[in-house]
Amino acid sequence: MSRGASRVEIDDIIRRVEGLGLGCHVSDGEERVIIGVVGTPMPPELDQMLEVHAGVESVVRVTKRFKLTGWDFHPQKTTIQVGDVLIGGDEVTVIAGPCSVESEEQTIETAKAVKAAGAHMLRGGAYKPRTSPYEFRGLGERGLQILAQARAETGLPIITEVMTPADIDAVAAYTDVFQIGARNCQNYLLLEEVGKAGKPVMLKRGLSLQLEEWLLAAEYVMAQGNPNVILCERGIRTFEPSTRNTLDVSAVPVIQGLSHLPIFIDPSHAAGKRALVPALSLAGVAAGADGLMIEVHPSPDHALSDGAQSLTFAEFDDLMPRVATVARAVGRTLAAGDRVASA
Amino acid sequence: MSRGASRVEIDDIIRRVEGLGLGCHVSDGEERVIIGVVGTPMPPELDQMLEVHAGVESVVRVTKRFKLTGWDFHPQKTTIQVGDVLIGGDEVTVIAGPCSVESEEQTIETAKAVKAAGAHMLRGGAYKPRTSPYEFRGLGERGLQILAQARAETGLPIITEVMTPADIDAVAAYTDVFQIGARNCQNYLLLEEVGKAGKPVMLKRGLSLQLEEWLLAAEYVMAQGNPNVILCERGIRTFEPSTRNTLDVSAVPVIQGLSHLPIFIDPSHAAGKRALVPALSLAGVAAGADGLMIEVHPSPDHALSDGAQSLTFAEFDDLMPRVATVARAVGRTLAAGDRVASA
Amino acid sequence: MSRGASRVEIDDIIRRVEGLGLGCHVSDGEERVIIGVVGTPMPPELDQMLEVHAGVESVVRVTKRFKLTGWDFHPQKTTIQVGDVLIGGDEVTVIAGPCSVESEEQTIETAKAVKAAGAHMLRGGAYKPRTSPYEFRGLGERGLQILAQARAETGLPIITEVMTPADIDAVAAYTDVFQIGARNCQNYLLLEEVGKAGKPVMLKRGLSLQLEEWLLAAEYVMAQGNPNVILCERGIRTFEPSTRNTLDVSAVPVIQGLSHLPIFIDPSHAAGKRALVPALSLAGVAAGADGLMIEVHPSPDHALSDGAQSLTFAEFDDLMPRVATVARAVGRTLAAGDRVASA
Amino acid sequence: MSRGASRVEIDDIIRRVEGLGLGCHVSDGEERVIIGVVGTPMPPELDQMLEVHAGVESVVRVTKRFKLTGWDFHPQKTTIQVGDVLIGGDEVTVIAGPCSVESEEQTIETAKAVKAAGAHMLRGGAYKPRTSPYEFRGLGERGLQILAQARAETGLPIITEVMTPADIDAVAAYTDVFQIGARNCQNYLLLEEVGKAGKPVMLKRGLSLQLEEWLLAAEYVMAQGNPNVILCERGIRTFEPSTRNTLDVSAVPVIQGLSHLPIFIDPSHAAGKRALVPALSLAGVAAGADGLMIEVHPSPDHALSDGAQSLTFAEFDDLMPRVATVARAVGRTLAAGDRVASA
Repeated sequence: MSRGASRVEIDDIIRRVEGLGLGCHVSDGEERVIIGVVGTPMPPELDQMLEVHAGVESVVRVTKRFKLTGWDFHPQKTTIQVGDVLIGGDEVTVIAGPCSVESEEQTIETAKAVKAAGAHMLRGGAYKPRTSPYEFRGLGERGLQILAQARAETGLPIITEVMTPADIDAVAAYTDVFQIGARNCQNYLLLEEVGKAGKPVMLKRGLSLQLEEWLLAAEYVMAQGNPNVILCERGIRTFEPSTRNTLDVSAVPVIQGLSHLPIFIDPSHAAGKRALVPALSLAGVAAGADGLMIEVHPSPDHALSDGAQSLTFAEFDDLMPRVATVARAVGRTLAAGDRVASA
Repeated sequence: MSRGASRVEIDDIIRRVEGLGLGCHVSDGEERVIIGVVGTPMPPELDQMLEVHAGVESVVRVTKRFKLTGWDFHPQKTTIQVGDVLIGGDEVTVIAGPCSVESEEQTIETAKAVKAAGAHMLRGGAYKPRTSPYEFRGLGERGLQILAQARAETGLPIITEVMTPADIDAVAAYTDVFQIGARNCQNYLLLEEVGKAGKPVMLKRGLSLQLEEWLLAAEYVMAQGNPNVILCERGIRTFEPSTRNTLDVSAVPVIQGLSHLPIFIDPSHAAGKRALVPALSLAGVAAGADGLMIEVHPSPDHALSDGAQSLTFAEFDDLMPRVATVARAVGRTLAAGDRVASA
Repeated sequence: MSRGASRVEIDDIIRRVEGLGLGCHVSDGEERVIIGVVGTPMPPELDQMLEVHAGVESVVRVTKRFKLTGWDFHPQKTTIQVGDVLIGGDEVTVIAGPCSVESEEQTIETAKAVKAAGAHMLRGGAYKPRTSPYEFRGLGERGLQILAQARAETGLPIITEVMTPADIDAVAAYTDVFQIGARNCQNYLLLEEVGKAGKPVMLKRGLSLQLEEWLLAAEYVMAQGNPNVILCERGIRTFEPSTRNTLDVSAVPVIQGLSHLPIFIDPSHAAGKRALVPALSLAGVAAGADGLMIEVHPSPDHALSDGAQSLTFAEFDDLMPRVATVARAVGRTLAAGDRVASA
Repeated sequence: MSRGASRVEIDDIIRRVEGLGLGCHVSDGEERVIIGVVGTPMPPELDQMLEVHAGVESVVRVTKRFKLTGWDFHPQKTTIQVGDVLIGGDEVTVIAGPCSVESEEQTIETAKAVKAAGAHMLRGGAYKPRTSPYEFRGLGERGLQILAQARAETGLPIITEVMTPADIDAVAAYTDVFQIGARNCQNYLLLEEVGKAGKPVMLKRGLSLQLEEWLLAAEYVMAQGNPNVILCERGIRTFEPSTRNTLDVSAVPVIQGLSHLPIFIDPSHAAGKRALVPALSLAGVAAGADGLMIEVHPSPDHALSDGAQSLTFAEFDDLMPRVATVARAVGRTLAAGDRVASA
C-alpha cells in the first residue's frame, strides 16, 4: 500500500481479495502496510485488479504462473518417445521434409532423401494455413495418406499440422505428432482439443508471442492431461526486412530456464531464404536446442509453397554432418548424422 | 531477367509460368529481357517461385492481391446496416460495453448507461480467449442470453466474439455482429465458417499482422459470400512498454486507401489503461475512423477482465460529447452523442 | 528479500546500500524482510545492482527518475516563448517548411507560402543526417543564412537541426530553436552542449526509444540549466511496412501524464507518404499534441530529400483550416489557421 | 512506366534524370516503356524521387548501394591486424573485460583473468553513454590510462568507446581499436571523424538499425579512407521482455552475404542477463561470427554498470573452452582457448 493509505483503503483491498476466495496476510510496517495474498486459484489478472484500487502502490507477483510447464512441480526435463525417436534426450532430433505434401512422388522421394541424410522424422503439410485465400491450401486427407505411406516406406515418424478442431480426428488417424502452427498458437480451443487427442504436440511460437505467453499456451494443452508438448521457435516479427522473420535464438536458453519442455528451432521459416538455413541451424544447436525442423524439397524452385526457404537434397546432405559436429561440440549427439558424417 | 540471362534460363521461366496455367509476354530489350506474366488465378507466391530461378533479376508485382476488399471492383465504400445503425456512413458508430459479460445486472446496467450516453451498439464477451487457461473464460451461452436480454431492454444491437467454428451456430442465434478477436485473425477456417453464417463480421487486427495481411484475412470472410466485414485496429506489438499495445492510428488512412471496408479503432485494448482511452478515441475519429469500440464497466476495479482499461459510466459520459465534437470537426456526425452534447 | 533469506544475506544488502551512501529502513515482517532504500542521489541502476544479490526476491522502485522533466517539482506545464509564438499554451503551434534548405528561392518561397497558410514557424535543414554518405547532406552555413533571410522576410522564427557539438555556435548564430534529430536522440554529449547554448531545443524521439528513455534524454538537456525543451514524436520502428515508421500517437497522452514539457507530432517522417499526412496531423491534434511539424516543398517531386512525404503548398493550404477546426474541437486554438479558416 | 504513360510523362522523367547528371536508356516495349538509368553518382533517394512522378509504375534498383562495404569491389574478406591479433581470419577473436573501467585494480585484475582464460583483447569503457544523466559516466582520460596500463601488463590490445569528435584525439592516444556504441551508430559526423583517425573501428549495431543501414553507416567510416571496420551485433529492440534486447543471430550470415567486413557478436548486451551469455556466445560462433565481445567483471554484483550481464572470472573460464570447441566444429580455431582447453 502507499505510505498514506487509509484504513478504509486497506480494508477495501482485503475484502476484494477475500471476495475472490483468497486469503490475506497483512504486515503492518512502520511506514507502510504490505498485504500478502495467498490461496489458489490465483487469478492471473489479480495484479491489474488490485493495482487500480485507491491506496495501492504496487503489486508484486512472487510466484510464476507456469503450473505444468515450469520446473517447480516437474524437476526432470521432459522426454518424448515417438517411434524410435527420443525427443528431449541427449540426441538432437532433426525433422525434415517439404512445406506442403504436393504429391506422392515428391513426398516419398523427399522422405527417402532426408532419411538417408540422417533425419529422424518427416514433416509435411496436408492442411496449410495461407495468408491469402487464393493460395494452395494443401491436399487435405489425401496428403495425410501420402505421409503415412512415406512413413511405411522409410520408417520415419511423421508430424503434420492441424488447423481446426474438426480435423483433429482425421489427422490423429495418421500422424505421430500434431503440429500447431504459429498463427494458431493462441487458438485456445484448438489447443485444448488437441490436448485431449493423446498424441504429442509441437507448438510453434506465434510471431508476436512473448515467451511467457507461449508457455501459457502450452499450459492449455497440458491442462488437458497431455504432458507431451514440444516448443518450436520459428522467428518473430521485427523491423528487420532482410529475413522473413527474426530468429530469436535466445528463446532456447530462456525457455530452458523456465520450463522442462523440449524446444526446437525452425530455421527455414525464420530465415525465409535457404542460404541462411545452415548458419541458423548450427546456431540453434549451439544454443542448446533439442532439435531442428527444416524444410527440404526435391525441387525448391517448383515448390507450391515456401520454395525460397527449402533446402535441396544436396544442401540438406551437406548440412547434416555439420549439425552433427556442432551437436557433439555442445555435448549432444546426432546419431544418424554421425553415421553419415563417418560414412 | 538479369543482363546476362541465357536463352535456356529465359525458356525455363516461360515453361514454369505456362506450367501454372498463366501466359507470358516477352519484351526483348537491347540489354535485357522482361517477361510479363498474365492470367488468373495468379498464385500469390509467384514472386518467390520465380525469383529463385537462375537468370531472374527481380520480380515486380503490378497488380494488388485484394480482389474483394480492394477498391478496384467495388468503388463505393461499404456500409452495413445493423438494426437502426448504419456502419460506414457519415455517422461515427460507437460500440461500448464490458469486456466480459459477468452477470445480468452488470450487463444490463452497462447497456442502459452506454445507451444513455449515446452509444449505438453493445459489446460484451461470452466466450473469452485468455492468455492463461486459469483465467475467467466467460459465461458461454448464458452470457449470450444476457446480451440478448440487454438488447431487448435497450434496443442496442449486440456484438460478441466467436472463437471456434463449433460455437458459430450458438453465437449466431443471439448476436447481431460476430467479432473475431486479434488472436484468431489468421484462424482461416474460423474466418471461412463465420463468412458462411450470414451476419456482419468485425475482424480485429492481429497483434503482429501487417495491414495487407489483414485485408487478406478479410478476403477469407468475403470469399464465402459475406460482404459485411468491419475492420478494427486495436494496437500492435512494439518495444514500447508504457502502453499495452501501440495504437497504429495510421492504419485508418492506409486501409481507407486500399479498401472500401469500414475501419474502427479500439482504444481500450490499445492503451491498456483507462486514462489514455479518451485521447486515443479522439485521435481515431480525427484520423477518419468509422467507429470506436470502447470498454465500459460499472465498477472497473472489480471487473473479471480488462478492468484497468475500462471506463466508468461517468468517464464514458464525459467522453461522448467530446467524440461528437471531433466527429463534426472532420465532417462526420455522432447523432446520439450530439443529442447528449446539446442536452 | 526472499522468504528464506538469511541474516547474512540481509546484512550484505544493507552494507551494499550503505556503501553507496544511501540509507536503509528494514521492516522485519513475520514471513519476510522488506528493505526500504532512501537517500540521494539514487543510482538509476540500483535495481539491477540489488536484484542479483543472494536472497533478494524483487526490487520495486517507488519513485520515478524524472527529476526535471517530471511533474513532481514542476507542477505547471512548460510554455516556451519563441518570438511571437508561445509553445505549449492554448494555441496549437504549426511548424512547416522543407526537409532541406536547397536554395534561397525554394526556401523563401516556401516560407511565404506556409506563413500565408497560417504556420507559426519555419523549419528547414542546413545540416542533414543521411543514412548513406553519398546523399545530399545540406548546404551547411549557407543554408543557415538562407533560413535567416527567410525569417527576415516573413517574420517566422526558424528551427533547424544541429548534428554535432562543433556546429552549435554556428547554428546558434542563426536559429531560434535547435532541433536534435531522431538519430542523435541519445548522443548525450550533443544534448549537454546544446543544453548550454541557451536556446530552446526540440528533441525528436529516437526510432526505438522508449518514452521513459526519451524523458531521460531530455533530462540531459535540462540538467545543463535549459528548461526549454520541446519533445517531438516522429514515428517508431515496427514490423509494419506500409508506413515509413509507425506514428505512436499514444506518446502524446503518456508523455503528458509524466512530464510538463510540450509535445509535438511530426506526421511527415512518421508516414513517409504525403497522402497520410493530413489524417495523422488531425489525429495528433485530437490526441492533445501542442504542435505539428510538417514538411512542405514547392515541388516535392523535385526535392533533394524526403520529397515523397512533403506536402505541396496547395495541400498545406487545404490542411490548415482542418487542423484549426480539430484544434477548436479539443479546446485549443490555431490563431493563424483560424484566420485562414474564416477568410 | 505505367501502361498508359503519355509521351509527356516519359519525357518528363528523362529530363528529370538528365537534370541529375545521369543517363537514360529507353526500351520502348509493345505495351509499356522501360527507362533504365545509368551513371554515377546515383542519388540514393532516386527511387523515391522518381516514383512520385506521373506515369511511373515502379522503380526497381538493380545495383546495391554498398560501394566500399560490399563484395563487388573487394572480393576478399577483410582481415585486420591489431597487435598480434588477426581479426577476420580463421581464428575466432574473443574480446573481454568490464563494461566500465572503475579502478586500476578492477581493470588489471580482469585483464589478467581474461588473458589467462584465452581472451585476445581487453574491452573497457572510459567514456560511458548512459540513458540517464544521473548515472556513472566513466572515469574519462583516467580510465584510458588504466586501460593502457592493463595492456602494458598483459600484452592484450585494448578497445574502448569514443562518444564525440572532441574526444577522438584523447582516445586515439591510448586505444588500439575505437568502439562506436549502438546509440552513436548513426552519429555520422562522429563516424567520419573516427574514420580519419587511422585506427580500426568497431561499429556496434543500433538498436533499431536495419542491416543495410548498418552497412551504410560503415560506409561513412570507410569513405574517409579507413578500411578497417568491424561490425558488432548486440541485440535489437523487439516486443520480447525476457531479454534486454533480442540477439539477431541471422545478422551474421546476412552481413557475410553482403559484405567483406568481419562481424562480431556481443552476447552480454543482447541478453542483459549473465545466465544467457554462454548459449548466445556459442550460437554466435556456430553461426559464423568472427568474434565475440563479452563483459567480465571481478564482482559483477558490485559493478557500477551492467553488472547483471557480466560474467564472473569463473564463468568466463568455463565458457572459453566451450567456445573453442564450437569454433573447431565450424572450421575455425580459438588458439588461446584451445590452449586452455587442452591444459
